Amino acid sequence: METAGPAAVGAGTIGADRIDDGRIRADGMMSVNDQDGEKRLAVALLGCGVVGTEVARLLTAHADELSRRVGARLELSGIAVRRPGRRRDLDLPAELFTTDAEALVKGADIVIEVIGGIEPARSLILSAMAAGAGVVTANKVLLAEDGPALYAAAAEHGVDLYFEAAVAGAIPLLRPLRESLAGDRVTKVLGIVNGTTNYVLDKMDTTGSSFAEAVAQAQALGYAEADPTADVEGFDAAAKAAILASLAFHTRVGAADVHREGITGVTAADVAGAEALGAVVKLLAICERTTSTGPDGVAREGVSVRVHPAMIPRSHPLGGVREAYNAVFVESEAAGQLMFYGRGAGGQPTASAVLGDVISVARNRVAGGRGPGESAHADLPVHPMGEVPTRYHISLDVADRPGVLAAVAQVFADHGVSIETVRQQQLDRAVDSGEPPADGATGRGIAGRAALVVVTHTAPDAALAATVEALAGLDIVEGVQSVMRVEQ
Amino acid sequence: METAGPAAVGAGTIGADRIDDGRIRADGMMSVNDQDGEKRLAVALLGCGVVGTEVARLLTAHADELSRRVGARLELSGIAVRRPGRRRDLDLPAELFTTDAEALVKGADIVIEVIGGIEPARSLILSAMAAGAGVVTANKVLLAEDGPALYAAAAEHGVDLYFEAAVAGAIPLLRPLRESLAGDRVTKVLGIVNGTTNYVLDKMDTTGSSFAEAVAQAQALGYAEADPTADVEGFDAAAKAAILASLAFHTRVGAADVHREGITGVTAADVAGAEALGAVVKLLAICERTTSTGPDGVAREGVSVRVHPAMIPRSHPLGGVREAYNAVFVESEAAGQLMFYGRGAGGQPTASAVLGDVISVARNRVAGGRGPGESAHADLPVHPMGEVPTRYHISLDVADRPGVLAAVAQVFADHGVSIETVRQQQLDRAVDSGEPPADGATGRGIAGRAALVVVTHTAPDAALAATVEALAGLDIVEGVQSVMRVEQ
Repeated sequence: METAGPAAVGAGTIGADRIDDGRIRADGMMSVNDQDGEKRLAVALLGCGVVGTEVARLLTAHADELSRRVGARLELSGIAVRRPGRRRDLDLPAELFTTDAEALVKGADIVIEVIGGIEPARSLILSAMAAGAGVVTANKVLLAEDGPALYAAAAEHGVDLYFEAAVAGAIPLLRPLRESLAGDRVTKVLGIVNGTTNYVLDKMDTTGSSFAEAVAQAQALGYAEADPTADVEGFDAAAKAAILASLAFHTRVGAADVHREGITGVTAADVAGAEALGAVVKLLAICERTTSTGPDGVAREGVSVRVHPAMIPRSHPLGGVREAYNAVFVESEAAGQLMFYGRGAGGQPTASAVLGDVISVARNRVAGGRGPGESAHADLPVHPMGEVPTRYHISLDVADRPGVLAAVAQVFADHGVSIETVRQQQLDRAVDSGEPPADGATGRGIAGRAALVVVTHTAPDAALAATVEALAGLDIVEGVQSVMRVEQ
Repeated sequence: METAGPAAVGAGTIGADRIDDGRIRADGMMSVNDQDGEKRLAVALLGCGVVGTEVARLLTAHADELSRRVGARLELSGIAVRRPGRRRDLDLPAELFTTDAEALVKGADIVIEVIGGIEPARSLILSAMAAGAGVVTANKVLLAEDGPALYAAAAEHGVDLYFEAAVAGAIPLLRPLRESLAGDRVTKVLGIVNGTTNYVLDKMDTTGSSFAEAVAQAQALGYAEADPTADVEGFDAAAKAAILASLAFHTRVGAADVHREGITGVTAADVAGAEALGAVVKLLAICERTTSTGPDGVAREGVSVRVHPAMIPRSHPLGGVREAYNAVFVESEAAGQLMFYGRGAGGQPTASAVLGDVISVARNRVAGGRGPGESAHADLPVHPMGEVPTRYHISLDVADRPGVLAAVAQVFADHGVSIETVRQQQLDRAVDSGEPPADGATGRGIAGRAALVVVTHTAPDAALAATVEALAGLDIVEGVQSVMRVEQ
């Protein structure tokens, strides 16, 4: 981001004098400018893309109503952008736009960061906090990468850090996890947190289209970007999973701790296999309390955090989440099963979440308090994926002759994996059917092909992966059609 | 509630000295007892029924973990009960139980009220606030009856008032409305907020049982009380609707403002009628921003708040809410459609919500702030039910002869109600069918009966009710089989 020097800073506010004295007192209380009897809070906006534009629009359009909810006037003190002269869909004075984000944050009571990415977002947030401003951000990448440093800065400077919009857009999810469930013990968070991939998988499921076709359709409708890597490879969902796990389990989890698999390998065979099982393929962010048994045989309490496609029953509340919607299923010891559902992206939904946070930070400043800080006291280990208990759905093309099932079952047994169900389906000519095949040859003794579909019980993921590898090496196995984890 | 004098008060705490000095300073900051370097907060529990028992159990079983989340030790300073000697499923020292609730609240930092009902709950909450304690309550009846007085006392004494458990049990719903959506504009809240009635209606739908049979089943399973009036007549849902509307619309709405109809009149015919429509009957709490046109012809912005059974499409997210589950659907301008789903009642889920609030109040006290207070700035009028736009599903038994539909349609037109769909179904012998009836008589000229099912467009509820009354008075109408509102 370019900078243009202090002269460009905060040259205008909406409907009021500039806030110069909105500073933090040593006791953490805001001293607010109330010359005309009304308290004022200067709100600086960093970034003016789709979300930023909508935030600016709502902040100004609903200024009176928001001010009444806060008990103080929220004044947009400036918008930091790279190109101030660019045409925007906002009816705001040109003086509000500045390229000097550093100077802007230093004059603010509340800073909203919707630039995204690591830098300059991180430096600007740290500067804002050092200058005493509360921060609202939608930056999942930064939080998943460097959350603890941001929390530490917020604590050091006695300011707020809110980030509801970083996960699942408009769905109130982080506040419930940080606050509503703070007295409970969350055991599992299972979420569809990426709208693009849900749209793609939903299309594959409902129209039978291939992955490539579905992505093209999503791009045409604006649900997927020209380069869809961050979505389809699961990076976006992994950052969100890290944030969810941190909050749910009071444990630091970063993006690097998350096992990540995208949906580029999901085939029509996977989707069909799910359907035969009464299930549907979803890209899930899964955060669980787990007990894992390491190579040393010792069981350890910890958490597992992973993003991968999985089959989930259609009857599960997440099984019916269609199109680009998001939904997150939470299980906790006392509350039981909860689900949160709504739009996970888009300018307006994200702006709604951002503004909810702005109101909270503003109310805290008016009341002289602070919202929740980092809660990482539990400090549980994050189990490596290989030790996490999972279930697999495996579909094999096998030679259709006696002894095949026994040989396959032996491979599972050798890896300590127990089988829940096996389904066999003859693919071409029948063996021992008694009926002559269409080409006139007799069936007996002629090896046809069969599909063998196995669903396992839970076993360590590494054992399941090794089982699949061993199966692929069997000479009776002609191909591995589909391998996918099963959640329920 | 009996009282037993100051001698019985606060004789013991869990694992620590009694808190005598946990008082509020003039600046709203708690002064906490930290002789051994750990801050302490005295938590008084009023009531020890199903919810209270679970709250006490979780508070003590998870004391260390909760303390780490708060940054101060939460100490159960006493439990006010009517019969201290009663056998309870709690492993707590007998000294913790007291009959002197008034004295108990005066020594507390946080008071949890789970007695229910108006008195003594109200007096105790007001005493607690006057003595500087933050209050957590699950008391929907009191909040719907006298919420503004409680908010006023909380503001006067600078203390918190939290009540997540009052609506939809464990589902984090009020915090999202009060905080997450505080920057947005909620247009509609549509909820299944009473588990008993949802269980009853679900059984009627899935098993075809009558209302009485389904209630008996719910009672046998503990989902309905011996006297189910508060649930089946909609009083419980109406109190919750008042609370939801107040928070959603920043407007004071009391139980008396809520139009209330229970489910005792729901018949198997209603349930079957819904099914034919691809819908299901649910008891809904409906809070909407509405424009109503009064008798003077002037349109007024306001809100409508009502609880009544209604047909809702099975494809609607609320249409699939089964058994005793609760779910609340929220629409807002920026966030779009959201849904919250989970268990609405029961000791553990309610205790989860109570403890989440306790943690919030405790964190606020440690940080020296306060949570949100009353937000009633919008002060919108509550429209009378007669002016609220609704849609009806009406099923009539009519004489099956020419001109009947025209006569019926005229009644709708006379009341300014327009019809969306009409479906006619012959009930016994056919007219003009050309086939001889089974008894050998010829069809022509013999009046049979037909069912006429009408779904209207929206119209003021009073016009729809008057239409039904006029239809019932027509001589061609032999009976009104079912009248029910339709939501979507």
